[in-house]
Amino acid sequence: MPSGFFEGIEKIRFEGADSDNPLAFHHYNPDEIVIGKRMEDHLRFAVAWWHSFAWEGGDPFGGPTFERPWYPQDDMGRARQKADIAFELFELLGQPFFCWHDADIRPEQGNFADNLRTLEEITDYIGEKMQVSGNKLLWGTANMFSHRRWMSGASTNPDPDVFAFAAATVKSCMDATHKLGGENYVLWGGREGYETLLNTDLKTELDHMGRFLNMVVEYKHKIGFKGTILVEPKPQEPSKHQYDYDVATCIGFLRKYGLENDVKLNLEQGHAILAGHSFEHEIAVATAEGMLGSIDMNRNDYQSGWDTDQFPNNTPEVALAYYYILKAGGFNTGGTNFDAKIRRQSIDAVDLVAAHIGGMDICARGLKAAAAMIEDGGLENVLSQRYSGWKSPKAESMLSSSLDEISARVLNEGINPEPQSGRQEIIENYVNRFV
Amino acid sequence: MPSGFFEGIEKIRFEGADSDNPLAFHHYNPDEIVIGKRMEDHLRFAVAWWHSFAWEGGDPFGGPTFERPWYPQDDMGRARQKADIAFELFELLGQPFFCWHDADIRPEQGNFADNLRTLEEITDYIGEKMQVSGNKLLWGTANMFSHRRWMSGASTNPDPDVFAFAAATVKSCMDATHKLGGENYVLWGGREGYETLLNTDLKTELDHMGRFLNMVVEYKHKIGFKGTILVEPKPQEPSKHQYDYDVATCIGFLRKYGLENDVKLNLEQGHAILAGHSFEHEIAVATAEGMLGSIDMNRNDYQSGWDTDQFPNNTPEVALAYYYILKAGGFNTGGTNFDAKIRRQSIDAVDLVAAHIGGMDICARGLKAAAAMIEDGGLENVLSQRYSGWKSPKAESMLSSSLDEISARVLNEGINPEPQSGRQEIIENYVNRFV
Amino acid sequence: MPSGFFEGIEKIRFEGADSDNPLAFHHYNPDEIVIGKRMEDHLRFAVAWWHSFAWEGGDPFGGPTFERPWYPQDDMGRARQKADIAFELFELLGQPFFCWHDADIRPEQGNFADNLRTLEEITDYIGEKMQVSGNKLLWGTANMFSHRRWMSGASTNPDPDVFAFAAATVKSCMDATHKLGGENYVLWGGREGYETLLNTDLKTELDHMGRFLNMVVEYKHKIGFKGTILVEPKPQEPSKHQYDYDVATCIGFLRKYGLENDVKLNLEQGHAILAGHSFEHEIAVATAEGMLGSIDMNRNDYQSGWDTDQFPNNTPEVALAYYYILKAGGFNTGGTNFDAKIRRQSIDAVDLVAAHIGGMDICARGLKAAAAMIEDGGLENVLSQRYSGWKSPKAESMLSSSLDEISARVLNEGINPEPQSGRQEIIENYVNRFV
Amino acid sequence: MPSGFFEGIEKIRFEGADSDNPLAFHHYNPDEIVIGKRMEDHLRFAVAWWHSFAWEGGDPFGGPTFERPWYPQDDMGRARQKADIAFELFELLGQPFFCWHDADIRPEQGNFADNLRTLEEITDYIGEKMQVSGNKLLWGTANMFSHRRWMSGASTNPDPDVFAFAAATVKSCMDATHKLGGENYVLWGGREGYETLLNTDLKTELDHMGRFLNMVVEYKHKIGFKGTILVEPKPQEPSKHQYDYDVATCIGFLRKYGLENDVKLNLEQGHAILAGHSFEHEIAVATAEGMLGSIDMNRNDYQSGWDTDQFPNNTPEVALAYYYILKAGGFNTGGTNFDAKIRRQSIDAVDLVAAHIGGMDICARGLKAAAAMIEDGGLENVLSQRYSGWKSPKAESMLSSSLDEISARVLNEGINPEPQSGRQEIIENYVNRFV
Repeated sequence: MPSGFFEGIEKIRFEGADSDNPLAFHHYNPDEIVIGKRMEDHLRFAVAWWHSFAWEGGDPFGGPTFERPWYPQDDMGRARQKADIAFELFELLGQPFFCWHDADIRPEQGNFADNLRTLEEITDYIGEKMQVSGNKLLWGTANMFSHRRWMSGASTNPDPDVFAFAAATVKSCMDATHKLGGENYVLWGGREGYETLLNTDLKTELDHMGRFLNMVVEYKHKIGFKGTILVEPKPQEPSKHQYDYDVATCIGFLRKYGLENDVKLNLEQGHAILAGHSFEHEIAVATAEGMLGSIDMNRNDYQSGWDTDQFPNNTPEVALAYYYILKAGGFNTGGTNFDAKIRRQSIDAVDLVAAHIGGMDICARGLKAAAAMIEDGGLENVLSQRYSGWKSPKAESMLSSSLDEISARVLNEGINPEPQSGRQEIIENYVNRFV
Repeated sequence: MPSGFFEGIEKIRFEGADSDNPLAFHHYNPDEIVIGKRMEDHLRFAVAWWHSFAWEGGDPFGGPTFERPWYPQDDMGRARQKADIAFELFELLGQPFFCWHDADIRPEQGNFADNLRTLEEITDYIGEKMQVSGNKLLWGTANMFSHRRWMSGASTNPDPDVFAFAAATVKSCMDATHKLGGENYVLWGGREGYETLLNTDLKTELDHMGRFLNMVVEYKHKIGFKGTILVEPKPQEPSKHQYDYDVATCIGFLRKYGLENDVKLNLEQGHAILAGHSFEHEIAVATAEGMLGSIDMNRNDYQSGWDTDQFPNNTPEVALAYYYILKAGGFNTGGTNFDAKIRRQSIDAVDLVAAHIGGMDICARGLKAAAAMIEDGGLENVLSQRYSGWKSPKAESMLSSSLDEISARVLNEGINPEPQSGRQEIIENYVNRFV
Repeated sequence: MPSGFFEGIEKIRFEGADSDNPLAFHHYNPDEIVIGKRMEDHLRFAVAWWHSFAWEGGDPFGGPTFERPWYPQDDMGRARQKADIAFELFELLGQPFFCWHDADIRPEQGNFADNLRTLEEITDYIGEKMQVSGNKLLWGTANMFSHRRWMSGASTNPDPDVFAFAAATVKSCMDATHKLGGENYVLWGGREGYETLLNTDLKTELDHMGRFLNMVVEYKHKIGFKGTILVEPKPQEPSKHQYDYDVATCIGFLRKYGLENDVKLNLEQGHAILAGHSFEHEIAVATAEGMLGSIDMNRNDYQSGWDTDQFPNNTPEVALAYYYILKAGGFNTGGTNFDAKIRRQSIDAVDLVAAHIGGMDICARGLKAAAAMIEDGGLENVLSQRYSGWKSPKAESMLSSSLDEISARVLNEGINPEPQSGRQEIIENYVNRFV
Repeated sequence: MPSGFFEGIEKIRFEGADSDNPLAFHHYNPDEIVIGKRMEDHLRFAVAWWHSFAWEGGDPFGGPTFERPWYPQDDMGRARQKADIAFELFELLGQPFFCWHDADIRPEQGNFADNLRTLEEITDYIGEKMQVSGNKLLWGTANMFSHRRWMSGASTNPDPDVFAFAAATVKSCMDATHKLGGENYVLWGGREGYETLLNTDLKTELDHMGRFLNMVVEYKHKIGFKGTILVEPKPQEPSKHQYDYDVATCIGFLRKYGLENDVKLNLEQGHAILAGHSFEHEIAVATAEGMLGSIDMNRNDYQSGWDTDQFPNNTPEVALAYYYILKAGGFNTGGTNFDAKIRRQSIDAVDLVAAHIGGMDICARGLKAAAAMIEDGGLENVLSQRYSGWKSPKAESMLSSSLDEISARVLNEGINPEPQSGRQEIIENYVNRFV
């Protein structure tokens, strides 16, 4: 029997771009074929438990604004109620996946034994609901940043007992993810960094983080978890500096600790912006190294210096993100998780539903535009023409040559290159034909 | 016979903190012993040819403001005159080192053969002056960003002829640096990046950049150059994105291309700020990996989003920079290069001299404060106490353990760590006793 | 006889959204009626002389990349040639307006008398061309930031002779603008601000700037110029701080110096971004005070901290800008000036043409989307419903009441307001139906 | 009887710069005479109730870390206990002032009548303690941003009932401030702004805010409150945009609504940084208009885009702030309030004490440096020389002249100004002699 929380809201249906029904999909049409694959299978949408069900509407200057039947979130009965209502939202939206932190789905208990017990209990409950609904787990993760025990880090904590607690916690969350058939397991190190360099032993902390992540990979193999291990770049917030600063930093870290073949990345638009990058940049850097795992789709207010985690709403930006994803072959175990929260003033159930509809529609528009560009091939042509000089044997052989040999050739041949236009505006106009 | 450019300005002498003579050192006392070494030998100051002699006072909205006898800079005679006056400044300041780009010391000729010939000519001339003055070359570098041929990159250019021109150019500059006994050779890739991702093949460009840098290392060994090869992180400007984004990115790049033992980093405060980091952060990350080479000392206006390249003037900030340098053992082949330009309105010769005096004094204050903290040991004590838990055998053995073993231990022993204060304010107050 | 500079490029025609001709308009259809007015008359496009003809492709780290027949720009003959080619571009694009600084259209002469003489000469020449082509002058302005005489400000210079030179220069440009039938006269104070507060008398400088602007208004009336006087907000660059920081700051300044009825604002997207605002914010603040004059349409790279002045290419953003313009009644004497420059690597004539096509198309898309939202009325309905409580007599009378009276009423009536959803996501989804 | 919360910490005494006692003042010596006035009377330090006693150590990604005997803060008994311990801190530090929001000193009750009753009760209690301790109230203020009723604004709320509730609340806080002899009353509008422009009627909201502030001024006169009414600029956070963006914006607002003679400004370093300004800029702009009221002394991390509210620790920066304050005559009713919070990891009582010690010492160092610069007069000399040209009768008369008269003079006299050096580096070096 439905909870009544979404009373009056019916299952969201695709009605096309011309519909003015705010509670319909205008672009997201799960079964529509886009470059040979169903739209749903391209986008692999996931709802995030934390923002959509655990966040209460507070901010650094204000308390909760939402009033939900499952508050206060300190009780296992209400944790189950929260799960019930979560699955009601999944039913309305029809998205295939969801994601959680342990702390989202059951209350923190204050000690590991009870954390473990309640995690097992709630994930059993969720598992039963998944059987019924058909939803799948895109990824699970451990919240090792909210409770005060993590204030100085989890795997990078100066206190080895916190490292131990973190290891036990990650094990429990990997077990639960494995049990629920999760397709990935994510680690986000919001407290793996520092507030002040003055009290921080950078090298030791990085070595501990590297060892910890190796343990995660070892344990994955031990239990036969077939999903992908993902880390998630973010430059700062809550910490003044986070070690997983951006994609390039994470890849350097993974390579240093011998993890580049076992760990991929979960990328978020908002985190890219905070690190001084565009989202497509981060995706392109990751795919250039074969390390794209999954995405946290949201947007960050360009004028705010903190993580605003808004639902995406700019088609041209989203289209470029999916362009680089499609160009790299699309998602494998990954998907499009809405790490996005409704605004603090959006206090009604309908706001929660509409926000997801809008996000899914924007992603669908972006995907279709990206697919059209892939099919048209215009951008690939730009690249193949622009770099065509490197296809000549002389150019290729230069790469296995030396500075003095090349210098001699420049002198002998009088090489004096003439600049060629980069054609940026023409290419941007081309993109605008599709978005 | 002096040029008269610095007429009325006498050799700058140390007069102590109480002097009110604006043309005296108040803190920089070259022979003063700081932790067992002369201050001059710690700081290893270098004057930068480009900002101090080649920059004409222009900015994106305005033309030159300076009027120098060696303008216009399109003639070899005036290039020699510029060198003469540069050495007059060195004589006034008494700093041991200087640095140049090829384009600073002689005019760009428009083709490689003439570029080579004039570079050899001017570096012979400079070499003779070094014999007389005793100044040394901290580093040389090739300007592969100003001329229009580099507009789409040097080693990363889509046109292989530009790669060739770059290889020849770097060879010529390495040869010149070697001839002058330079202690380092620097590469800064201001155009190694992109204006728009849409016309850029990231992977190819990075591979070319990696190969190019390997050629540089190979050539260094071939000619027996004993100096250090340095790359210089900067996130953007002039390019929208530069591949050498920050220290972590550069280290990841070096490791990927097998260069981590042959190349170190030249760090700049302003570039750190533009990348979203503090200068001490970048230094600490580099030293944690043993990759600090040298520094470009300046400061960036915190409210401006471009490279303001101002002379340093905040002692507490400079002290932290030198603290992390001293902690890592100080400079080896590196030094403190003033990659700093006087403001566009500072049009007189005396401004140029005074700016260097101020910068050298601030660095001297910073160095002395850093040395006092090293000697006091307070910050090291903070670290050894804070991480002392990791000295226990149980903690150490945990690092070679596994998630499930640790989890069992957490359950068995009921491990439930209690947070410890990070003491940030107390530590910051401690630092303020020294700066 | 055409110059051949645009050889092979034919007059740009509207071909509709489905055309894949890069040298056609896909959305800009001048005669199409949008809410009762021709699209051309809504948008009132202007080409900017400086970026399109005077900028040579340099940046702070590199010299010119463009090679144009009218270079070097130091000769009146080539100034006329530049004008000829400018009008060839106008002919290709068919936009009604253009804009200039004095320094764009003729070379700076180094003294006022010659500056005046050559300005009169070139504006006579341009005037003749306008007769033929039918183009009109959206606005003229004086470049009081490039030459070294302006390095410490124009009207705010510590030297009263610079104030005098500025006054004479503005008079000459106002006269020329008036002669050419200009619809506005603009002042942008790139050097009206400071590099360091330490050498700046803020109060005196602001008073001088206020007096100067009053003189401009007085002179406008004296000569019977019917156009609008506009000032242009920008927070910094080239100066560390500019007095015309943003819209709110400018309005406060105008009000302080009694100018709020005589001066309006010329707003630029890039400047809004640099000041920490969205473009629509700046437009909305200006229109709330009735002070919108004209716009400089471009975009700023969100990851770059300097004025990137790119052609606009994001329809959703542009649509919001025009929404607030249309809501305020559209342009009066103002228009849409492309204060946008092609990228430094876009060195060909076709790049210049295509950039304008792309910008005009994006603006046309934005305008049409904005018009559709105006006609649909959805956003107005949001506001009228959200603020409907203020229509009650009780609410209105409260505004002429007092704290103690209201307090008594709150106590007596037990007023305890219940929050209402702000509906942000639903409204954003609504907007996405139109963009 | 003391609570024991600060057990082991004795009253903080001045021990001089050479002391290595972390719990002593090294620079703050209340009775030391600085330019004719006791240091205490210059600085007028205040402890902020909110950060020091009401903030629990949470951040957007984590819950409380502090454990205080007065938690949970939902009970009037513990509110009194909190007051007791606050006064114990005041006793230890010896600072003269403190500040509060209503919500800091007693729990929010959920309705106005109970809010009023408990506010009166706790302020009576605090008043008694002030009698004993001798502490004074620098300012009181109403927290109209934390409770969900304020989520869409207080005086700018679309719901007139919220405006009414705000009016009643401010009245109650002004009454309480008046009762306790407060020297100022502050309004900070953290929710007076918007999350999205799309649902916001800017003009109406600004008019309501202007009327509200006029009511505050009217009520001040009605009750005979002699303190100063202050508004506090902040650009954003928690709102996406706040109307009191920065000093210039606030002054423009005050002038528009006729409040420029009745309201002054409370300036905060962190808010200046977030608005793109230096702290000294904001102070200088305010003092140029005679509108400096008081300061919230803290610092913002330069790499973080949110309000980090750290205790100040950079003497050179603080010195410039006090320089502009002293230059304007120093504080009148205002003072130096530590709107600064200890870091989330600084969980011990000693951290709270040490943070204030460090802040007070840095301010004392800054004040002494500023005073020395005032007494030396070097910066004033710079200004009087730089602007000396404006003292001539010809220059002065030009200001009452016209563009055409000046233009004629420029032509007749051949005025062609020669740039003068701005001397920035020399002036910065001068400042460094004092800091």
